[in-house]
Amino acid sequence: MELTLIGIGTGNPEHLTLQAIRAINAQDLILIPRKGEGKADLADLRRAICDEVLTNPETRIVEFDLPVRDENTPDYRQRVDDWHDAIASAWQSAMAEAPDAARVALLVWGDPSLYDSTLRIAARLDPARQIAVIPGITSLQALTAAHAIPINDIGAPFLVTTGRRLRDEGWPNGVDTLAVMLDGGCAFQSLPPEGIHIWWGAYVGMKEQIIRQGPLADAADDIVRTRARARAAHGWIMDIYILRRTI
Amino acid sequence: MELTLIGIGTGNPEHLTLQAIRAINAQDLILIPRKGEGKADLADLRRAICDEVLTNPETRIVEFDLPVRDENTPDYRQRVDDWHDAIASAWQSAMAEAPDAARVALLVWGDPSLYDSTLRIAARLDPARQIAVIPGITSLQALTAAHAIPINDIGAPFLVTTGRRLRDEGWPNGVDTLAVMLDGGCAFQSLPPEGIHIWWGAYVGMKEQIIRQGPLADAADDIVRTRARARAAHGWIMDIYILRRTI
Ligand SMILES: C[S@@+](CC[C@H](N)C(=O)[O-])C[C@H]1O[C@@H](n2cnc3c(N)ncnc32)[C@H](O)[C@@H]1O
Ligand SMILES: C[S@@+](CC[C@H](N)C(=O)[O-])C[C@H]1O[C@@H](n2cnc3c(N)ncnc32)[C@H](O)[C@@H]1O
Repeated sequence: MELTLIGIGTGNPEHLTLQAIRAINAQDLILIPRKGEGKADLADLRRAICDEVLTNPETRIVEFDLPVRDENTPDYRQRVDDWHDAIASAWQSAMAEAPDAARVALLVWGDPSLYDSTLRIAARLDPARQIAVIPGITSLQALTAAHAIPINDIGAPFLVTTGRRLRDEGWPNGVDTLAVMLDGGCAFQSLPPEGIHIWWGAYVGMKEQIIRQGPLADAADDIVRTRARARAAHGWIMDIYILRRTI
Repeated sequence: MELTLIGIGTGNPEHLTLQAIRAINAQDLILIPRKGEGKADLADLRRAICDEVLTNPETRIVEFDLPVRDENTPDYRQRVDDWHDAIASAWQSAMAEAPDAARVALLVWGDPSLYDSTLRIAARLDPARQIAVIPGITSLQALTAAHAIPINDIGAPFLVTTGRRLRDEGWPNGVDTLAVMLDGGCAFQSLPPEGIHIWWGAYVGMKEQIIRQGPLADAADDIVRTRARARAAHGWIMDIYILRRTI
């Protein structure tokens, strides 16, 4: 029994690798989660990918409703843990629809290693199930490609972090480049903007892609407004940015 | 006139994305650098990729010898700058063989944004040349996929850095996960190993792939020996690792 987590990239169906296409076609069962309306419902994209590249008539696709997080659980860790347990059960039920599926896969947004809980949820399943991972293009790479920039200065380190960390802890010591993900609300506004350049992108890799860049002092307001408008227009947003100290 | 940097992944031809395959077939000219014997001569792999996926009869492939760095230039920055200038000239000469090539591409190892100088060299060319980037699977993703691990703890940051930095500066403050690249010689040996876990890989994604993991105190010696043997056997090595504080 094998469970394969297949990275599918960040919304551009052409982000798929040949390895991912081969893995999709090697499955007995592919599980597609449904998030419910109004959310970034990426089920459509996953369905479209299967329509496009799945040629194996033996492969079954089963959709299931993704459980929601219980916001009444006060402790954050507990809330996430309970939620992951619930998702693992939802997978189990979905798999029961194809009882002799020896090879089951999930299509993971971006790369399964980067700020994604699928691997942690998979660890809750039957330990006899082998886990395999197929890498996928991340949103960070889609961002640097859209701007045609390197992420690092020559020989220099960079930190990948979250909006929450940046807001709560400020600019970390000892590093001049930050990549910020999972930012619910423009945490770059909490920084003194002098001497910082920003490269920002929303829906990177997707047809809705929007990018902006410039000195943070000049670009911040426009990004905040652009983000709010895009979010209102689409009902959801995913954005990511790189900050670099230039002095 | 457009120059496209196409990320090709890290040695597994199946790392190629559909976008990369389409971009390869949209070129007038593809430049392939030759490094000379004994080196990690990845020209063979680039040739094999073109053989496999290039179907456009109009696309020409031109190989050129990559200039070597002048190790007599004492200053590191200057040495790198001069070298990048020399590579830019080598590209110009190679392009002169197809004088009306409007679309020229280079196949970049991994992703063009990550510790790669191609974008910086491209900036030295005629500024009228548009630069486009196609993202590719990085060695870091090939490493996490091989080990089937997430790179980050839940909501936690991680630092991507170099062997030189780790050796010279030790474990940086404020972060519990490091990804180390460009390490000429097992810089993890400079750390007190207690409470650190390592996930290491060489030739990740390639058929020669070797991986090891474990508490650093137990795994370090084996990795050092394994690396030395593999390097002797192949004549070259590329390795990468993740370190995580577990206490
Ligand atoms: C749960 S993480 C998943 C990351 C994913 N595994 C990857 O490899 O990119 C979600 C965060 O990724 C970023 N993200 C994912 N897709 C994106 C896109 N298409 N455009 C901009 N940001 C994106 C955003 O920062 C978002 O908050
Ligand atoms: C000049 S950097 C290029 C990185 C590349 N752009 C990428 O996206 O992975 C070279 C470093 O990448 C890492 N690397 C590249 N390919 C690798 C592979 N197949 N296996 C292990 N490490 C690799 C090593 O740390 C090596 O020193």
